Amino acid sequence: MFGNCMMNVREKTPLVHNITNYVTVNDVANILLACGASPIMSDEPEDVVDITSICGGLYINIGTLNKRSMEGMFLAGRKANELGHALLLDPVGAGASALRTNTSRRLMEELKFDVVRGNISEVKTLALGSGTTKGVDADAADAVTEESLDGAVTFAKEFAKKMECIAAITGAVDLVSDGDRCYAIRNGRPEMGHITGTGCQLSGMMTAFVTANPGNKLEAAAAAVCAMGLAGEIAYGRMQKGDGNSAYRSRIIDAIYNMDAYTLEKGAKYEVF
Amino acid sequence: MFGNCMMNVREKTPLVHNITNYVTVNDVANILLACGASPIMSDEPEDVVDITSICGGLYINIGTLNKRSMEGMFLAGRKANELGHALLLDPVGAGASALRTNTSRRLMEELKFDVVRGNISEVKTLALGSGTTKGVDADAADAVTEESLDGAVTFAKEFAKKMECIAAITGAVDLVSDGDRCYAIRNGRPEMGHITGTGCQLSGMMTAFVTANPGNKLEAAAAAVCAMGLAGEIAYGRMQKGDGNSAYRSRIIDAIYNMDAYTLEKGAKYEVF
Amino acid sequence: MFGNCMMNVREKTPLVHNITNYVTVNDVANILLACGASPIMSDEPEDVVDITSICGGLYINIGTLNKRSMEGMFLAGRKANELGHALLLDPVGAGASALRTNTSRRLMEELKFDVVRGNISEVKTLALGSGTTKGVDADAADAVTEESLDGAVTFAKEFAKKMECIAAITGAVDLVSDGDRCYAIRNGRPEMGHITGTGCQLSGMMTAFVTANPGNKLEAAAAAVCAMGLAGEIAYGRMQKGDGNSAYRSRIIDAIYNMDAYTLEKGAKYEVF
Repeated sequence: MFGNCMMNVREKTPLVHNITNYVTVNDVANILLACGASPIMSDEPEDVVDITSICGGLYINIGTLNKRSMEGMFLAGRKANELGHALLLDPVGAGASALRTNTSRRLMEELKFDVVRGNISEVKTLALGSGTTKGVDADAADAVTEESLDGAVTFAKEFAKKMECIAAITGAVDLVSDGDRCYAIRNGRPEMGHITGTGCQLSGMMTAFVTANPGNKLEAAAAAVCAMGLAGEIAYGRMQKGDGNSAYRSRIIDAIYNMDAYTLEKGAKYEVF
Repeated sequence: MFGNCMMNVREKTPLVHNITNYVTVNDVANILLACGASPIMSDEPEDVVDITSICGGLYINIGTLNKRSMEGMFLAGRKANELGHALLLDPVGAGASALRTNTSRRLMEELKFDVVRGNISEVKTLALGSGTTKGVDADAADAVTEESLDGAVTFAKEFAKKMECIAAITGAVDLVSDGDRCYAIRNGRPEMGHITGTGCQLSGMMTAFVTANPGNKLEAAAAAVCAMGLAGEIAYGRMQKGDGNSAYRSRIIDAIYNMDAYTLEKGAKYEVF
Repeated sequence: MFGNCMMNVREKTPLVHNITNYVTVNDVANILLACGASPIMSDEPEDVVDITSICGGLYINIGTLNKRSMEGMFLAGRKANELGHALLLDPVGAGASALRTNTSRRLMEELKFDVVRGNISEVKTLALGSGTTKGVDADAADAVTEESLDGAVTFAKEFAKKMECIAAITGAVDLVSDGDRCYAIRNGRPEMGHITGTGCQLSGMMTAFVTANPGNKLEAAAAAVCAMGLAGEIAYGRMQKGDGNSAYRSRIIDAIYNMDAYTLEKGAKYEVF
């Protein structure tokens, strides 16, 4: 199943429009190419409607948002909704500033997202209207662990049901739910948190997976999470003496580039609740 | 000849002003340093005239253009023309949106470019006023291949003559023409398309080559194309098991860093029409 | 001493707010993570006050400044001052344009910086109101060498005393002074100048060091300079045949990632004037 989702990306090479932060944008572009998709970036309000029209999916990430790019997000998002394109939100730092919290809530209200992908603190902020996000990382008190898993699964399902979207909440255990079912995924390595942008990259890649699998969005989103985590495991196995987070960053993208359906299928570690 | 063009860059270390997209800007800076040039980035209208004045060349790339940077492009471009600096346009995504198409056409009308470097779809858009650009990649129907080479050479020459600039059209076969002569270059690897920004990087490096070889711009532009393609070949030869597009990206810049005049001279594969 | 400064970063994981250029921002984020800190980027005026409030330090870098980000710098800087946060300025290209010169001087007037980190041409511009900055690199005539060391030490001390901050002037020999004492540091490699952004990265990391060592800012700033230079030496020792500036860039960040207090303590090469 997950292998098929990846194959569909490689076969359809979906064009994905990214309105994302300038910190990790290059890695987002390269991981989209690595998984077989084609990236295009544009955030100018006068440009975004045309650009999103030629794409199949739109990825909105609010890291380093500004007044201009915010306007671009709403314009592009409305067009994407109108055209029935896949639409994903990564609410980077929601809870860390009023602007980020309010913007992500407004985006959720005015647009219909297929997927919201964030850490638990960011998603709780969207659910509850407040959060304890510390910067761009999840608060330790919020972290999804084996101990807190049951409650977190319930939260993910309720959030997805209420918001009518797929919730992808990543952490030590990753949760992907459409309200009815919830994948709990145990791929990945803690060292992935020592690289900037693994979350942003995952969201970009997930947009491509959902775009290429319109009839199977929940599985596509979960497949992207497994692929990213598995890439983190494979890349970790390729680390050499002296390598650090920069080499690791590069090796993760390379692991996606070389991943085939069989490897993903075999390496995916998940259960369904 | 091509070797000399590269040596001139390494000896003169031209300072190049870049107004370019935020996706691949870091790679553009690093490849400029790799080839022996010195990069500076600035797109704020109040800053660009001063910055371009201390440089020898200006590289304008319209990827992720916005209202502010567009104003910067025109201001810097006029100053560069006034000072007789080398000026290059990379019309990223011309044909993919009205803003990109119109902006690149306006830039061509109001400024005098030494070189326009793009894929065939982008350059056709500039020539014909419309195009079938799919995102930032050339449309397959437009691709320059061995079969379509004759027609493409004629198109490149006519475009260069009409626009009074050097046309550098890159694809499976790369064409570089000043209207009279046309280099057809067969360096490079298809895998270079799996990295974001190899085109942007080439345009940046080409600006340095043209800046450092003012009496020999056609050869300088062609030399940059050969150098980039050859770097792609050398880097491919250094790929290890498990490497992907991220490692390849890094190895290409490294190959430029280590390339000497003799290697370029010997490795360049081209014919002149 | 320097080892302790680094250990404090790894133990306290300070959250650092970065308003920095889009060219090297990804490397700044990754080196902050590599040294044990946590980065967050935000330059929108409506966002910066909230973001800086949850951080411990603020790093302002004027490369690719624009009207919007400039407003963000002043707003965030005032809040950081109010909260007693560590505050660092990197006046990239001061002397190269009126906007950059005036903006860095205005920032120095309106805000209280703990540290100013730049090359000698940039710092002279701040001291004298004019400079001979060539692009983003120091003018050769200004360079701090063994021959010009005595005069440069005097200049660094006087600048620090007058501006009431720590002056960190980097070059062939690096100087770090609080007005009374001056560290002259001889770590590093000339090849670090072939990578874009080693200065930006050092400034980011230095902000983390100063944030985590509030009672010991001079030593913390000097420790960051030694750590960066030592990383350049370690990374150089790991270069393979065919590696260039791109591999070097990655290996430097990796060397910071793997550096422990003992290695820094043992590898630091400095004298105090």
